Amino acid sequence: MQNDITLKIALDSFGIYIKRTSKMLDGFSDELLEQEVSPNKNTGHYLLGHLIAVHDNMLPLLGFGESLYPQLAEVFIKNADKSALQKPSIVQLRAQWNEVNTLLLSNLELLTATQWFEKHTAVSDEDFAKEPHRNKLNVVLSRTSHLAYHVGQLALLKQ
Amino acid sequence: MQNDITLKIALDSFGIYIKRTSKMLDGFSDELLEQEVSPNKNTGHYLLGHLIAVHDNMLPLLGFGESLYPQLAEVFIKNADKSALQKPSIVQLRAQWNEVNTLLLSNLELLTATQWFEKHTAVSDEDFAKEPHRNKLNVVLSRTSHLAYHVGQLALLKQ
Repeated sequence: MQNDITLKIALDSFGIYIKRTSKMLDGFSDELLEQEVSPNKNTGHYLLGHLIAVHDNMLPLLGFGESLYPQLAEVFIKNADKSALQKPSIVQLRAQWNEVNTLLLSNLELLTATQWFEKHTAVSDEDFAKEPHRNKLNVVLSRTSHLAYHVGQLALLKQ
Repeated sequence: MQNDITLKIALDSFGIYIKRTSKMLDGFSDELLEQEVSPNKNTGHYLLGHLIAVHDNMLPLLGFGESLYPQLAEVFIKNADKSALQKPSIVQLRAQWNEVNTLLLSNLELLTATQWFEKHTAVSDEDFAKEPHRNKLNVVLSRTSHLAYHVGQLALLKQ
């Protein structure tokens, strides 16, 4: 019962932040997303790509299959905004944002309580035995904060 | 057992974000905190006050006693940065940030598993019976995301 409540809180909270981000993105033109959130800082374009790459990587991390767009990690995680690498267009990223999060949330909704407390795939059996908090719930909670961190920055594009 | 793990994740995650914020604040001069995080947006000064006011309000919300600095809510929650209200100095706010969070975290560490799942004080018994997720754990998780949201903005002050 307490577990069910916790898992509802965690999943709702992640889902609400994703919805809030989607709504914000819908309200931003492509031109606005090309702007930096503050002078000489990341653009909305980069932050959108970064969030997709991080959420896409949650698919294998949570055992939901392969990443849909593993090539995004090179541009949006391993390299900075001002790298010379070419970024996929904002139009393309908007579609990928929706696709990746829809797949992720639909998989999360099917997790049983037992599965939420299983290890994520980046931790070994040995380490998990010593550190049982490195579970799937932990991944979702930490990605919720990660999303909030960057949504706070994206919100600065509002005019 | 699973509850204990969840509560450890939630408390660690809140504590880590607070520590990360403290470290960032320590690295910022008062002059830097007076700057806006992006042109015409909130200053570091306002965001610091806002975070203290919100965390201070967690004390009564979680049943830990009265707020230490209830007057901060007027300046930093009910009013915007550009209001004509006078703000306490950054020196004073730095001390209050540490004081409020130390008290908050020490109280959270003493909560029993049962207490984490009890209602917070802003929800009635009737509503809690229908919405059992409105508990203390929920408050801490949502305040962790709130903190992350604004830390993402404060980080833009880095030069």
